[in-house]
Amino acid sequence: MSTATAPTAATNPDTLDKLLALTREPFPASTKIHIAGEVHKDIRVPMREVLLTNGEQVTIYDTSGPYTDPTATIDVRKGLPDVRGSWIAARADTEQYEGRIRQSIDDGLRRALDANDPEAARMETLRQEASALQRPPRRAKSGMNVSQMHYAKRGIITPEMEYVAIRENANSAWAAEYLGDTEKNNRLRGNPMGAVLPTIMTPEFVRSEIARGRAIIPANINHTELEPQAIGRNFRVKINANIGNSAVTSSIEEEVEKLVWSIRWGADNVMDLSTGKNIHTTRDWIVRNSPVPIGTVPIYQALEKVGGVAEDLTWAIFRDTLIEQAEQGVDYFTIHAGLRLPFVPMTAKRRTGIVSRGGSIMAKWCISHHKESFLYEHFEDICDIMKQYDVSFSLGDGLRPGSAADANDEAQFAELRTLGELTQVAWKHDVQTMIEGPGHVPMHMIQANMDEQLKTCHEAPFYTLGPLTIDVSPGYDHIASAIGAAMIGWMGTAMLCYVTPKEHLGLPNRDDVKQGIIAYKIAAHAADVAKGHPTARARDEALSKARFEFRWQDQFNLALDPDTAKDFHDETLPKDSAKVAHFCSMCGPKFCSMKISQEVRDYAAIEEGMKEKSAEFKAQGSEIYIPIHAA
Amino acid sequence: MSTATAPTAATNPDTLDKLLALTREPFPASTKIHIAGEVHKDIRVPMREVLLTNGEQVTIYDTSGPYTDPTATIDVRKGLPDVRGSWIAARADTEQYEGRIRQSIDDGLRRALDANDPEAARMETLRQEASALQRPPRRAKSGMNVSQMHYAKRGIITPEMEYVAIRENANSAWAAEYLGDTEKNNRLRGNPMGAVLPTIMTPEFVRSEIARGRAIIPANINHTELEPQAIGRNFRVKINANIGNSAVTSSIEEEVEKLVWSIRWGADNVMDLSTGKNIHTTRDWIVRNSPVPIGTVPIYQALEKVGGVAEDLTWAIFRDTLIEQAEQGVDYFTIHAGLRLPFVPMTAKRRTGIVSRGGSIMAKWCISHHKESFLYEHFEDICDIMKQYDVSFSLGDGLRPGSAADANDEAQFAELRTLGELTQVAWKHDVQTMIEGPGHVPMHMIQANMDEQLKTCHEAPFYTLGPLTIDVSPGYDHIASAIGAAMIGWMGTAMLCYVTPKEHLGLPNRDDVKQGIIAYKIAAHAADVAKGHPTARARDEALSKARFEFRWQDQFNLALDPDTAKDFHDETLPKDSAKVAHFCSMCGPKFCSMKISQEVRDYAAIEEGMKEKSAEFKAQGSEIYIPIHAA
Repeated sequence: MSTATAPTAATNPDTLDKLLALTREPFPASTKIHIAGEVHKDIRVPMREVLLTNGEQVTIYDTSGPYTDPTATIDVRKGLPDVRGSWIAARADTEQYEGRIRQSIDDGLRRALDANDPEAARMETLRQEASALQRPPRRAKSGMNVSQMHYAKRGIITPEMEYVAIRENANSAWAAEYLGDTEKNNRLRGNPMGAVLPTIMTPEFVRSEIARGRAIIPANINHTELEPQAIGRNFRVKINANIGNSAVTSSIEEEVEKLVWSIRWGADNVMDLSTGKNIHTTRDWIVRNSPVPIGTVPIYQALEKVGGVAEDLTWAIFRDTLIEQAEQGVDYFTIHAGLRLPFVPMTAKRRTGIVSRGGSIMAKWCISHHKESFLYEHFEDICDIMKQYDVSFSLGDGLRPGSAADANDEAQFAELRTLGELTQVAWKHDVQTMIEGPGHVPMHMIQANMDEQLKTCHEAPFYTLGPLTIDVSPGYDHIASAIGAAMIGWMGTAMLCYVTPKEHLGLPNRDDVKQGIIAYKIAAHAADVAKGHPTARARDEALSKARFEFRWQDQFNLALDPDTAKDFHDETLPKDSAKVAHFCSMCGPKFCSMKISQEVRDYAAIEEGMKEKSAEFKAQGSEIYIPIHAA
Repeated sequence: MSTATAPTAATNPDTLDKLLALTREPFPASTKIHIAGEVHKDIRVPMREVLLTNGEQVTIYDTSGPYTDPTATIDVRKGLPDVRGSWIAARADTEQYEGRIRQSIDDGLRRALDANDPEAARMETLRQEASALQRPPRRAKSGMNVSQMHYAKRGIITPEMEYVAIRENANSAWAAEYLGDTEKNNRLRGNPMGAVLPTIMTPEFVRSEIARGRAIIPANINHTELEPQAIGRNFRVKINANIGNSAVTSSIEEEVEKLVWSIRWGADNVMDLSTGKNIHTTRDWIVRNSPVPIGTVPIYQALEKVGGVAEDLTWAIFRDTLIEQAEQGVDYFTIHAGLRLPFVPMTAKRRTGIVSRGGSIMAKWCISHHKESFLYEHFEDICDIMKQYDVSFSLGDGLRPGSAADANDEAQFAELRTLGELTQVAWKHDVQTMIEGPGHVPMHMIQANMDEQLKTCHEAPFYTLGPLTIDVSPGYDHIASAIGAAMIGWMGTAMLCYVTPKEHLGLPNRDDVKQGIIAYKIAAHAADVAKGHPTARARDEALSKARFEFRWQDQFNLALDPDTAKDFHDETLPKDSAKVAHFCSMCGPKFCSMKISQEVRDYAAIEEGMKEKSAEFKAQGSEIYIPIHAA
């Protein structure tokens, strides 16, 4: 049964909860292309190619997966096609096994099936409808380590590594025209702030970065649907979007659409922050239908299993949850192992205490038992699980500042230094690791935060929430934080966790998610341009050239959000003829500065000396006005 | 006839063109207070005082004028009450005179009154309805100079100077609680990047900054309704909004409301960029009803007077337009006098040529006549006019980059250096001067741009449009530019010209204007916090404290946009009880990190040693859960 539903308008303002169909529309004038590997011939790296009206083709890094490929058959009850299965099998270091026995409590149910709970019964129906999504898990053979870091350290270039190398290059031949001018390249030369961005990304460079721990490829061996991606300061800056389960789910499509919508607009990966009931089942739906890495915070589910009482958490329950999620294919786990008992009192004088949910759960556990965190104590045990599935660490910043007043304080930096220690433990086990960061940090304190992270965490990728540069903008915190995100991205942060306009206020709806993602695509792209990413600037030039040449449609199609660009233009000038008009609504046909400067250019190009030609130019009858009816 | 109409909802999504009534609602829980002068006893500086539910009072810098004062009687046909008339009269250096004779062409009419033009006839009716707005102008007595800079250089502290000193301090006694902690103050200490921000702003400091040319108080002697304001790197960062006349105006309120709406959300001043017909009359309506400085680009009106043909512009027509607008009370003029003939060919190889409207008009004039710009040639003549009315220069950057590719290029910097030379000419005449800046500049090139401006323009205030950090975000350029604006504001820019989401695409509607202004309030506040403005941070702390203590209403009321903050919260939790609930919709009642960290704080405060108390804490039966029905 295919669920390749009719396309929905990409600008549909419905809330996430109301939307039932998957968004399958390709982007305007765009084609999905695939580039094959050279080391590994069977890999096919997807990209988006935009055909411009002047015949140019612009290739864009594409996070949207098969959903924007009209030739792809999508069935959310079966999951996406297998991408990595054969690569993993070829390594011959994993085994299929029966896996952990699923329990009702995994979905937050206290009994096997609450016969009197219509919601539970309905979910059971949906679950059975999607039974094809349940797959027997794989794990490393006894004594083996299947992490990308492990391969990298042994000099092996995996298909995943070549894949991300090709993906980062993004078929940049078209960009040469825009990047050929020496004067301009010198003038615009980026400031990488210590990053090393190769002109051409090679598989070997990827391998060396992974081996060094400076980048990760989150890629659980049980997430075979994944289109691999690198996160590291010497790669394009990535962004993350958070999604969560609905209180009442009416369909599988509804849950999967949150993912599809997020990656459509450019989320490089997605965290599933579901709580309450049905989180195991929802996670199956998400992972099986996701071409991007999925992250989770396992302590959330563990807490559900103990009825929400933090003190009742145990290592056994947590460990079981890690295995449960690793078997499902989660690519990275946020684990707040750096929040140690002695750090908790450091937060007492803070303006906003502990604002991380995971952090506050662990703080409560620590002070209730007056014991060191079981996450810290069992860190090597956790590493042992991670390396059997190649789950990456996202070491959580449970003590991140929740207000500008708490930025860069003793508690935050004590935890950060501990995360640095844990990074070295993880690396000893060849477990891929990134470090989570704040939060709320005023602009002038961002550099110190970045410097401290680079130093104490040995350049393990930094993954920050914002940071928000001020506290007084509830309703607009995607903007307050995009400022901080752009800056910290430039300075070396590898991935930016988005913030939506609803931050601090409520649950984001469909449009809020898009607003947050676009704000963060802006921040990430601004960072790439500032660092001097070898081709990032070319897309700006292609769009600006289209703008200067009044190729409106190309301007829309090269935009981060073509729909909104076109809609905004049409609000003032809805006619099709306006799409080719040599003016726009800001100045109108009488007053177009772009047109005048085109004339200046023609003039300067034709004339060697200007003086003697002045009279001729006037004689041509050149006019600032274009007659209105030309529109 | 009073037009103090019924309040309209501040969140009304109607377009500017549809809105007829003035927005008069005070901000929630806010009172307009006035602080008297000490040197000049009769000055009354308005501020907004927010009463919090815990009894605290927070005072906020207030740009909204009498419109948010429910006790003020507003009649847009008569204009705002006189603020400065007596101050100007007391200086005894001005004279009232008949003024320039108004001409039909001032309103874009080719004949005295087009009898067959119903639109012209209707406008004439509106004009007569507002005839009380026409006032005989004042100018300096022969040989006198009435600029604030002139007084400042002679050691005179004017009422305007004391006014802005009081205004900048913003009654900060309440902030002491938030700024008292030494550890925190050391940790959060700003980085002023060369600015000198006094702890208490004194009238004498203002005077010295004006005398030095490092700040301006745009304050035409014919704009007596003005609430004076300082623009300079050692003052709060200001923002500007642009408005323009409607194609078909249905009422005076409609045009004035654009101004009222802009200053409500925090525009420190407004540029009237009207073109086409009725611009003289519209300007009367705007200036007479504006408590904030009004800026214009006189070349726009001059071009209308010559039928849109740039080559036909003459010094005589331009000069007449300057006097026309100076008599009306315009506070600053954008004049593109730095765009010289030899610079025009420098733009020929640019990606996007000349994008400034004023710049392209002058470029066309220069190359058509092959003559040096008449603005440059007549610059001292222009100074002679400016100082008779105290109109400030906003020296226009006609060659600002219109794309990242053109940032910081030869053309831009050649013009900037010329603006620096002209600044010294203006200062010789004691004419207040600020310098306009770009445009499109990637993050890593912003510092060089700021440095070049500070050096070549001798610290005259910088007034930048954005800058936009990338080109690929049409539809979201308020965000792409807020990133650049925040950074350049931190580095020393005195005023940020806003960008709306419609930039590059169309005409902003009412909501676009608000979105642009809020994005720029965020940028300006982020800059103030980063520079270490003595009290800016306190508002963030007050809001974060409210957030931590679950005082939802206070969090909304301290926000830059209380309406949106409240609306977003209500979308998820509409009940009044949720406003006092100790949880929010992000985590729900079961999972509140704020609540847990409150518990941590209580715990840490009570216990000296933690170990022995652990058992007792558990015995208290503390729970993460709050029963759902408590909501």
